[in-house]
Amino acid sequence: MNVLLVYAHPEPRSLNGALRDFTVARLRAAGHAVQVSDLHAMRWKAVLDAEDFPEHQRDDPLNPSRASRLAYAAGTQTDDVAAEQEKLRWADLVIFQFPMWWFSMPAILKGWFDRVYAYGFGYGVGEHSATHWGDRYGEGTLQGKRAMLVVSTGGWAEHYGERGINGPIDDLLFPIQHGMLFYPGFAVLPPFVIHKTGSMDAQRFDATLQDLGARLDAVAHTAPIPYRRQNHGDYLIPALTLKAELSPGRSGFALHCERPEDAGATARNSDVHNAPALSSPVHS
Amino acid sequence: MNVLLVYAHPEPRSLNGALRDFTVARLRAAGHAVQVSDLHAMRWKAVLDAEDFPEHQRDDPLNPSRASRLAYAAGTQTDDVAAEQEKLRWADLVIFQFPMWWFSMPAILKGWFDRVYAYGFGYGVGEHSATHWGDRYGEGTLQGKRAMLVVSTGGWAEHYGERGINGPIDDLLFPIQHGMLFYPGFAVLPPFVIHKTGSMDAQRFDATLQDLGARLDAVAHTAPIPYRRQNHGDYLIPALTLKAELSPGRSGFALHCERPEDAGATARNSDVHNAPALSSPVHS
Repeated sequence: MNVLLVYAHPEPRSLNGALRDFTVARLRAAGHAVQVSDLHAMRWKAVLDAEDFPEHQRDDPLNPSRASRLAYAAGTQTDDVAAEQEKLRWADLVIFQFPMWWFSMPAILKGWFDRVYAYGFGYGVGEHSATHWGDRYGEGTLQGKRAMLVVSTGGWAEHYGERGINGPIDDLLFPIQHGMLFYPGFAVLPPFVIHKTGSMDAQRFDATLQDLGARLDAVAHTAPIPYRRQNHGDYLIPALTLKAELSPGRSGFALHCERPEDAGATARNSDVHNAPALSSPVHS
Repeated sequence: MNVLLVYAHPEPRSLNGALRDFTVARLRAAGHAVQVSDLHAMRWKAVLDAEDFPEHQRDDPLNPSRASRLAYAAGTQTDDVAAEQEKLRWADLVIFQFPMWWFSMPAILKGWFDRVYAYGFGYGVGEHSATHWGDRYGEGTLQGKRAMLVVSTGGWAEHYGERGINGPIDDLLFPIQHGMLFYPGFAVLPPFVIHKTGSMDAQRFDATLQDLGARLDAVAHTAPIPYRRQNHGDYLIPALTLKAELSPGRSGFALHCERPEDAGATARNSDVHNAPALSSPVHS
């Protein structure tokens, strides 16, 4: 497979740096081709602004979504953005590795999504009408590719558990995994999460490498998170609400995953794991 | 009141720009003192890296959390970070206004949190032990202050409803409202959310201003979201899991709000709205 590792930590001589080096070596030893976007080393421009659109007339108000659409269509994006899009087209699997800062990703990685996910590439793909709300959430530019998060936290696993004070890790990652990865078409593998990074000793580090290695060895056949696809019957369009008969009694983000008890109602979705994404503007 | 508006949109001649100007004028007319941190106009440095710690020896590996603690304690932070902390100390109310990009805030604002929330200021406050896990989630440096989000989205309100495909807006905002605002001590007012920004006509714009004005007029006495405080009996320490008898049968982020049915069990929390935060490292 072709694997892109998008990596966001300011210090190579860190736990994250060691895990990145391990990941690259393990994947290459298994015969995969690997590219790394090391955002700090690249001095990635995190902020989306008018400088991203060289053709934009400075006297005109900047509408980020419109400017993005025009630049993507005309091939006038900045080189750094176009290069990342090309890496995404090349990749079969994309791994995003970052330390969790303030219950989300570091700004430099958020700025990668803000800028690389252009209108026409990451969103605004496919027909947008009263009967088809874009190729998104399972369809889109990145359909057929896999993605996986590798995330470190300082807190304990319990703090991120079902009743932990920070909120469940799966819910904290939902805006990323569902909103940034499944949205443009990725099939999203379960995340690899390392907790208590402040107290990592040699024994736990070795165990972590062993676990991560096993996940990397299995990426080609690991079942993705069964997020519901937008355009395969589960949602009313254009309201885009989940149909009343699905996931009765559940609430929150968990609604948007298929569970075994829904299997009868959604037999048509037996191929959901090959999850495909056309989008609507998310910039405003 | 002293009001700080932290504003993150690249174009002043935008819907967000108009709402910002309205907000500042309305607050000043009511007699409040207002400061604005316009992050794009300030060319805010979004990326946390070694340059933030002038005293850090470049030959030493950068541990962001440790470097932050040392710089905050020694008074060697960069001027831009120290100035924002000073504004936060001055403010009674902080409004964060931004367009929702990819189900979160723009990178420039995330980088404000990553950098301004230093160890010893935004986290790592108070005693950290097996019996007291920091002054956080209702206690901390920003205790006694109020915060409120003003957020615009391109999508429809239904798409962000209880069963909407994007996930409920309250859950999407939880990592921000609970994880970034309640964590260091803010009492968090319900957010003001503007949907369908791409189709804003004059009539809806006027209605939006009227609604926003009413919210601004009421900021001093609006009841905050009743997030549960960490250090007032609801959580086991150090596991930091919600006690079994609280919110039985509920799941997800909603667990961490008090609801009327819990009133009997948590009478001791009658003053929860004066929510106070000591923290643990969130950087890793």
